[in-house]
Amino acid sequence: MFGKIKPMDKSRRTFIGHSLMGAALAVSIPSIVSAATKRGAAAAKIKIEPNDVILFQGDSITDAGRDKENQAPNNNRALGNGYAFLAAADLLHQHAAKQLSIFNKGISGNKVHQLDERWDEDCIRIKPNILSILIGVNDYWHMFNGKYDGTIQVYRDDYRKLLDRTLTAFPHVKLVIGEPFAVNNVKAVTDAWFPAFDEYRHTALEIANEYKAAFIPYQRVFNEASKHVSPAYWTTDGVHTTLAGAKLMAEAWLRVVK
Amino acid sequence: MFGKIKPMDKSRRTFIGHSLMGAALAVSIPSIVSAATKRGAAAAKIKIEPNDVILFQGDSITDAGRDKENQAPNNNRALGNGYAFLAAADLLHQHAAKQLSIFNKGISGNKVHQLDERWDEDCIRIKPNILSILIGVNDYWHMFNGKYDGTIQVYRDDYRKLLDRTLTAFPHVKLVIGEPFAVNNVKAVTDAWFPAFDEYRHTALEIANEYKAAFIPYQRVFNEASKHVSPAYWTTDGVHTTLAGAKLMAEAWLRVVK
Repeated sequence: MFGKIKPMDKSRRTFIGHSLMGAALAVSIPSIVSAATKRGAAAAKIKIEPNDVILFQGDSITDAGRDKENQAPNNNRALGNGYAFLAAADLLHQHAAKQLSIFNKGISGNKVHQLDERWDEDCIRIKPNILSILIGVNDYWHMFNGKYDGTIQVYRDDYRKLLDRTLTAFPHVKLVIGEPFAVNNVKAVTDAWFPAFDEYRHTALEIANEYKAAFIPYQRVFNEASKHVSPAYWTTDGVHTTLAGAKLMAEAWLRVVK
Repeated sequence: MFGKIKPMDKSRRTFIGHSLMGAALAVSIPSIVSAATKRGAAAAKIKIEPNDVILFQGDSITDAGRDKENQAPNNNRALGNGYAFLAAADLLHQHAAKQLSIFNKGISGNKVHQLDERWDEDCIRIKPNILSILIGVNDYWHMFNGKYDGTIQVYRDDYRKLLDRTLTAFPHVKLVIGEPFAVNNVKAVTDAWFPAFDEYRHTALEIANEYKAAFIPYQRVFNEASKHVSPAYWTTDGVHTTLAGAKLMAEAWLRVVK
């Protein structure tokens, strides 16, 4: 379904390749992430370099109960209990000599415009070399349940504005864009979400291509995983992850940043 | 230094092999854990089986800020922010279809006798198939700083009593015993700790052999890691881990339980 989206070039963003494309069927659980992320000859990879500053941004899925008073990099409590913590632990182990600084500034409930409101404090000030963003499920969900009047066009415009602003400050920042995901038939997520929610996924991919960002196909990862073990094993409510689901996300993320 | 300890057989405990033995030099950080744990032909391994109930027990290193109100298995908050959480995430991902139940009941400050005091509630009630214990640094440390009058003989006797009690309740439980460790020249840990502290490490190995437990040589893992990257990268104070150190421990643990 992603094949129809044409990447638009931004000449200043040429150092990362194209996003991951193509579907895959996995046959065993440990290979799900591999199968779901490795297809696509032009799969974007980001290579960890010495002194990289890595920032995870997003909503509750990224937040994962982090200690918001703690400003230290690489800190257990400051990184929460989710995929950002798990990915950080792996990076700090695999790249021990590289003096990485890893931060998580996800905040529960956030939509794109709320990232924008706190961007000076929670992104620009941190000066990331690698910026990973997962945002969008609340842009849909809060609209769906009548708490927000944003549309898909607002999501797209807000996301572009946020990235343009980021690239003005850091022209060479390496971007990772996570696909918003929703696992159907688990508590909060029902047939009524679709196909409208899919537009948010497609838009995130479209933007990843447009900005030459690496793209993490979380929806595909959860879909594949849910073919093998019950969806409720991976997500508590269709939106938030269990620990197994957080690990699935971290593994997908680490396929792209290594 | 471990080679002189002779394992004593307990006939009821024959299903796990001998503990990991032998020293190793690692040449790169990701291979440290591998090098530090794989030597020894009779390396004990525990194979994860469907419906296994896995319990992590110990002191603050295991506790790692876990939510003690949360009694759910496999729960992000209940598992803390340390090696138990990281190991659990990996097991739940690698063995997704096996319906594992993973608990962390470590409590900060605990010595062996304090595990014993809460064993009915925090072990027997949980009915573990796999029981992982890391205890001993406080048995030494609190004695060293005058807050406790236990000796190495008390540690040994208390540890055996705890395991005998456990095996009476669960004759087939698979035991994992972690080596107490202390990283010299980082804050709390100084030359004054040695060689007295080493006796606690040796005793833990002796007991692991006696009870046919798998043994995780954490001291060797931290020693090897500290040859490559500053000790302070792996531990905050010589006793507690950074996130990188927690990952190092989880990787060592996962070499033995898989």
